[in-house]
Amino acid sequence: MTQKAISYADAGVSIDNANLAVAKIREYARSTFNERTLTEIGSFGGMFAGAFPNMSEPILVASADGVGTKLKLAFDTGIHNTVGADLVNHCVNDILVQGARPLFFLDYFATGKLEPDVTASVVEGMARACRENGCVLLGGETAEMPSMYADGEYDLAGFIVGVVDKPKVIDGKSITPGDVVLGIPSTGLQTNGYSLARKLFFEVGGYTPDSFVEELGTTVGEALLATHASFLPQIGPMLDEMSGADKSVRVPLIKGLVHITGGGFLENIPRILPSGVAVEINRGTWPEPPIFGLMRRLGNVDEKEMFRTFNMGIGMIVVVAEAEMETVKAHLGGCHEIGKIVAGDGDVVIC
Amino acid sequence: MTQKAISYADAGVSIDNANLAVAKIREYARSTFNERTLTEIGSFGGMFAGAFPNMSEPILVASADGVGTKLKLAFDTGIHNTVGADLVNHCVNDILVQGARPLFFLDYFATGKLEPDVTASVVEGMARACRENGCVLLGGETAEMPSMYADGEYDLAGFIVGVVDKPKVIDGKSITPGDVVLGIPSTGLQTNGYSLARKLFFEVGGYTPDSFVEELGTTVGEALLATHASFLPQIGPMLDEMSGADKSVRVPLIKGLVHITGGGFLENIPRILPSGVAVEINRGTWPEPPIFGLMRRLGNVDEKEMFRTFNMGIGMIVVVAEAEMETVKAHLGGCHEIGKIVAGDGDVVIC
Repeated sequence: MTQKAISYADAGVSIDNANLAVAKIREYARSTFNERTLTEIGSFGGMFAGAFPNMSEPILVASADGVGTKLKLAFDTGIHNTVGADLVNHCVNDILVQGARPLFFLDYFATGKLEPDVTASVVEGMARACRENGCVLLGGETAEMPSMYADGEYDLAGFIVGVVDKPKVIDGKSITPGDVVLGIPSTGLQTNGYSLARKLFFEVGGYTPDSFVEELGTTVGEALLATHASFLPQIGPMLDEMSGADKSVRVPLIKGLVHITGGGFLENIPRILPSGVAVEINRGTWPEPPIFGLMRRLGNVDEKEMFRTFNMGIGMIVVVAEAEMETVKAHLGGCHEIGKIVAGDGDVVIC
Repeated sequence: MTQKAISYADAGVSIDNANLAVAKIREYARSTFNERTLTEIGSFGGMFAGAFPNMSEPILVASADGVGTKLKLAFDTGIHNTVGADLVNHCVNDILVQGARPLFFLDYFATGKLEPDVTASVVEGMARACRENGCVLLGGETAEMPSMYADGEYDLAGFIVGVVDKPKVIDGKSITPGDVVLGIPSTGLQTNGYSLARKLFFEVGGYTPDSFVEELGTTVGEALLATHASFLPQIGPMLDEMSGADKSVRVPLIKGLVHITGGGFLENIPRILPSGVAVEINRGTWPEPPIFGLMRRLGNVDEKEMFRTFNMGIGMIVVVAEAEMETVKAHLGGCHEIGKIVAGDGDVVIC
């Protein structure tokens, strides 16, 4: 008696489905290509011209990130074409804080059972955000891993590489007491704190993603899916500008940038502070979007925990010399003067 | 009555545990740093000197990959310090096929409940492989995502960037009928086909990871966890060598390289073939490790399916002009002459 032949597909992995997904991905990726892109999707490695003749000392800046459990909102609502944009914009912001402009992006998409349409929708969002940021979607990996993910779920990671010329690196080193802290508004929770947000809304509050909340002016699902903004359009035009304060020491106009991601104000701001300084943030200097107050009330969440978990309405923090503040504010458009640098030991004090 | 305050930790995310993991990761990462590394782990982006003054046209080559369900073997056996090496070596090989040497690597590690020791063990394997490949572990993301992963499970993705000078890119374009196909032995299943392998061993065959199999000379778990080899030590010394066949047209000594990953021989070899050629692979020209025959028999797996899923004992394929074969074989050490390039239409014929 001949045993039935077992195939890879019997084990839950469809190379045919993978090829179907790759065909769609290839189209989206191609829409992001520029003159530096030297390969099509499907090569073992993506190739990208790496000479920067206009830079004195090019520095590559790379970062990896995920979307966290914001993905659960995509699963719950069936809206899959925004989480890819969240991921790209998050990565763009993470290297922007060091003064880098994005060059290329790669993704990792893993799921239990590959649904080519869902994968394509996720990649569509990535490609859109890549185009908006002038970033090439150079490659990625689509993995079908039976029994690793629940039905209809997937995980998503992004990798970005950008470049900055060494004299224009933004590293916070020139920050001194008296400098001003500006805050650029976020569009929502960005991509952090979703495990807590989901617990507060769906477990404690009894909401569903479809619940319309007057205070939010929209449904909970839509409010929570608000796309993580890229701050490159606002910050980018200033990356090449140097401070005019002291002509003998040319330093970048922007002294420090902080992306308010996982760990909120309290964990992120200290990442760029030199020794001898601290930060005072003044509540009330910016309008806190109602979603944060609502979450705080739902779970009686401690104020400190709020600032350690969420962005509280500020997506990016910009530190500048007081003398340059008006110039920078004019560039940034809608931003708020939310605090100042003081002498201290790396603390972030919320007043 | 005051409601108990809900914290981020109550929602299953421990920033303290994350900080504990990062402290361990930082140590391992530091062991991989070189003079091009400009940041510590914990920066928003990892910074890496990006000038290549000895290259005429530096090309960055990037790739993203995962370990697939080989991870399940790590979960089953509790051995977590090899999957990171699998991932790094896989990525190194993926860019090596285009002639690139690795520069830096970033990882994405996602789990339901962060266990700092497990994370550290995974990163230890990554750092070890990074050191062995002269590659900097420049950064990464550790994500705690409650309810996304089963208890004790995690997913892992890697992202690599390497560099090659344009005249030394290996792209298969010079492959012509008459060229020789050499095969470098794999160390096992590398990182592909594990969903099928696990089905065959554990569901169909009734083995456990602890089962000792005479034919394999080891346990099933150990055989399946054999580390994916990096082929950089064997191939690297030849990357700068040009073919002496035609002095007027300087082409790299190695005409084409294929990493036998997901899709096996049948899906991977065509990725580098120019139009007008095909490949004949001759079974019996290399010793097939017994694990492949055992799996075939366990599931009565079709021969073609075997070659579309597994590497069958060949980890990397090297295509060279017949006149250069002996030179290349001498460089490679243990390799096998497994086939030849013929006129055709991109087919891979297993004879």
